[in-house]
Amino acid sequence: MQQTGGGHQDILGALLNDSYKLVMTYSFFQNKMENDQTAFELLFRKCPFGGQYVIFAGLNEVVRYIKNFKFTEEEIEFVKQNILPSDANPKFFEYLRNLDSSQVKIRAMPEGSICFPKEPLISIEGPQGICQLIETAVINLVSFPSLIATNASRMRQLAGSAHLLEFGLRRAQGPDGGMSATQYSFLGGFDGTSNMMAGLRLGIPVSGTIAHSFVTSFSELNDVESAELNGVNIKLRAIEYHKKMGVKTNQGELASFIAYAQSCSNNFLCLVDTYHTLKSGVPNFLAVAFALDDAGIKAKGIRLDSGDLAQLSIQAKEIFKHYGDQFEKDVSHLKVAASNDINEEALIHFNKKGHKIDIFGIGTHLVTCQKQPALGLVYKLVECKNQIVMKLSEEYDKTTFPGQKNVYRVYTRSDQCVDIITSINYLPENNEFKCIDHINKQRYHIKPTFIESLLQPVDYDYVPDLHAAKKHCTKQLKEFNTKVTRLESPQKHLVLMSTEYYQMFQSKYDEIAIEEVIE
Amino acid sequence: MQQTGGGHQDILGALLNDSYKLVMTYSFFQNKMENDQTAFELLFRKCPFGGQYVIFAGLNEVVRYIKNFKFTEEEIEFVKQNILPSDANPKFFEYLRNLDSSQVKIRAMPEGSICFPKEPLISIEGPQGICQLIETAVINLVSFPSLIATNASRMRQLAGSAHLLEFGLRRAQGPDGGMSATQYSFLGGFDGTSNMMAGLRLGIPVSGTIAHSFVTSFSELNDVESAELNGVNIKLRAIEYHKKMGVKTNQGELASFIAYAQSCSNNFLCLVDTYHTLKSGVPNFLAVAFALDDAGIKAKGIRLDSGDLAQLSIQAKEIFKHYGDQFEKDVSHLKVAASNDINEEALIHFNKKGHKIDIFGIGTHLVTCQKQPALGLVYKLVECKNQIVMKLSEEYDKTTFPGQKNVYRVYTRSDQCVDIITSINYLPENNEFKCIDHINKQRYHIKPTFIESLLQPVDYDYVPDLHAAKKHCTKQLKEFNTKVTRLESPQKHLVLMSTEYYQMFQSKYDEIAIEEVIE
Repeated sequence: MQQTGGGHQDILGALLNDSYKLVMTYSFFQNKMENDQTAFELLFRKCPFGGQYVIFAGLNEVVRYIKNFKFTEEEIEFVKQNILPSDANPKFFEYLRNLDSSQVKIRAMPEGSICFPKEPLISIEGPQGICQLIETAVINLVSFPSLIATNASRMRQLAGSAHLLEFGLRRAQGPDGGMSATQYSFLGGFDGTSNMMAGLRLGIPVSGTIAHSFVTSFSELNDVESAELNGVNIKLRAIEYHKKMGVKTNQGELASFIAYAQSCSNNFLCLVDTYHTLKSGVPNFLAVAFALDDAGIKAKGIRLDSGDLAQLSIQAKEIFKHYGDQFEKDVSHLKVAASNDINEEALIHFNKKGHKIDIFGIGTHLVTCQKQPALGLVYKLVECKNQIVMKLSEEYDKTTFPGQKNVYRVYTRSDQCVDIITSINYLPENNEFKCIDHINKQRYHIKPTFIESLLQPVDYDYVPDLHAAKKHCTKQLKEFNTKVTRLESPQKHLVLMSTEYYQMFQSKYDEIAIEEVIE
Repeated sequence: MQQTGGGHQDILGALLNDSYKLVMTYSFFQNKMENDQTAFELLFRKCPFGGQYVIFAGLNEVVRYIKNFKFTEEEIEFVKQNILPSDANPKFFEYLRNLDSSQVKIRAMPEGSICFPKEPLISIEGPQGICQLIETAVINLVSFPSLIATNASRMRQLAGSAHLLEFGLRRAQGPDGGMSATQYSFLGGFDGTSNMMAGLRLGIPVSGTIAHSFVTSFSELNDVESAELNGVNIKLRAIEYHKKMGVKTNQGELASFIAYAQSCSNNFLCLVDTYHTLKSGVPNFLAVAFALDDAGIKAKGIRLDSGDLAQLSIQAKEIFKHYGDQFEKDVSHLKVAASNDINEEALIHFNKKGHKIDIFGIGTHLVTCQKQPALGLVYKLVECKNQIVMKLSEEYDKTTFPGQKNVYRVYTRSDQCVDIITSINYLPENNEFKCIDHINKQRYHIKPTFIESLLQPVDYDYVPDLHAAKKHCTKQLKEFNTKVTRLESPQKHLVLMSTEYYQMFQSKYDEIAIEEVIE
């Protein structure tokens, strides 16, 4: 398994944990239950963003965390001094000292999978003590990754063939929130990032150009010295083009573009809104781009960062054409990039206006998942000492699905796709499934032509890395029923229970439900 | 300066940065501008959450980051291979190798201060090269801390005298997002956390009890062995009380409470909603609490985690009283804790219903800042080579305030408080200020009785730590005009420009604005 290197290794210890986990583990220990065999499942109950799917992400990090789980002496001392009673059983600390994940087995969906509410994403089996203790970190390590991968996949759909860059480092929850955002937006469909640390540690393509402060650092043409590229004096040539254009633009901005072109001619994409996008930024850019062209170097384009981005992209390309015609220059390769508070609604609006944007840079709304900033993942006990376990609730939706399970994704001749939750040991007869929708009680008899078993045993030493997960995700999104994955009025994917599982579920429910007395 | 220890040290390097920063630095270097003296300011333009203030947080980490800024050889190699042109000037890499913060001076508001839009929170002065490069990390390190401290301070207001616990680790943006959330919600007014790593690294009080999976791990009374505390057999005594109550409750739940009491009698606070809060959880809790009382041990109380929390808190305390009377037991010390998706609206609703909740555990909506998940901090160049610098924009609100400044917070005899932005070298005559509201052009003559200068030089080796910042924040919130800090219809705090600063602002604006031609 490749180390993902995405940060937080210095704090991802056994104590990155809610304190009740330690309190419970101690109580289990005192009651000689710490080695009881248990099974837990990680799942969510509702899809985010008004959509009907989630991209499962974070598995690689979960496996790494569980594999390396170990208390340090400093952590044990903290628990002794701060969490447990002062007369706590000293044998418990010896137990903590020896605790590891050697007896924990994991089954999981492949990272990057499309998944649905109530389905186990990860199933964890092992002794009560350790399986209880890892809950908080497991939820943490899947929750934000899956949320942002899903968010990114939605933006990917809206952006069509445009290039998508993640620009959110400064808006994330701290440095590590930024690294996670970069990592999992890439998994979900982004093409690159501005975050160089993610380039270094995770091999994600990095790109970037200049900011407003670069432009405002120049106030006149004298602020830039001239340099020759392939025998062409870029500064003088740009000034000539500018003069021929006959426009009045900001001279500091022109100087900054010349300085940029002379140092990074291979990556000349100018931020054009410092003074006035169409009257100053775009003409200044073209003057320098044409000078570069005379030196045989292709400019990349412009970045819009304020105003009506769709409208400006159309107008900017008209200006490209106007001056291209005037100076007999090819401008067809010049790109328009756009940034500034872009979210789903903005992308929909741009599409309606027929924008000419080639590259989107998205920050805030990608990394904060503005529309729904948390995925309500839960980690539930489903078996204890080979007994199935269920938790009721006054809120029916919080009632858990007891027992270890499999999830089958089946495809039929009529091109339908259905997910089926079964007991773990259930094998369909003749590859056919008798199922039920446990809410409306509709019964189904399903005859698939292809069956996938979604939960696969995880080998601690080989879990696909970020790039493999991205590949899996891309393939899934390409092939899945678009009626389910689309953003506008998506259909609910059918998730059924096998009849045998439903019977077990219902009889357990009847066994433990508290009756309401009306008198 | 105390190391805060809040994580992300393994990724907080020079490359945790947007790549355009490196592109710009190289262009400056090629143009011999890397040592130009510059000044930058960190500010925001709009208060979050519909409020009228922000709590400034993150300074300690910013100072530590700047102080330790240094490129590693691995990072320089990455820049060479991935960011700059292949024929980049080799002297630039030598420059990066030697780059540090020794020439950077910082002025800042004290961490924990109440602050307002457009005011510089941090003012950074030094060579162009280094000052440009730190932008992304500085924004990142202040943005989420200030947002969550502000969010926490609002919940603090709504919770009155109740105890506030942060429960958000599992819902944060990764492990480090969790650590930041714990750290800065504590600064903004929370009393403690469930996050043990934050206890260990940051000295934040930690508390926690049990979860549903603890309760569901027990299915019958035989699952728990009996133990004596101070000569009382807790299991048998609890079963006796339970029998006398004459209620039918879940026996596994009762067993779990007995196990918990016997191991952690000093911290007996039961989660009561696993099966039925009022019919099962509360009576089971009381049976065990009374047994503990017989052993001379005070139980702590219950935690509600679903249903109508305000209503249940009232009903639970009625049941406490009912059985307290029946068994002649004092129940006045028993607390009700509540958790489950609590946000500002829920707290307002609870207050209206006259809730009896003593402790709130808040996770998701605290750490994700649901109402507004990002604070739009910006880092703007205001001076370059002793020239003031201004950035215009088609969006007027994005026009920057040029030049280095001071911010004075002045108080008058009539108990008014006003913030005044002045040029850095301005000294008020006779301690009086001539000011203007630069939007509506209203002029003011202010005669303060007390003047605070908010931006103070920062000593790299001594920056107040988290606990000092919390103290400052608490004091500020206690003393500040509640018309500004209140959540319902808050008033805008008056932030004015001194007349001399306004004149400079206006003349710079007139100098660089691009005129619109109408023909």
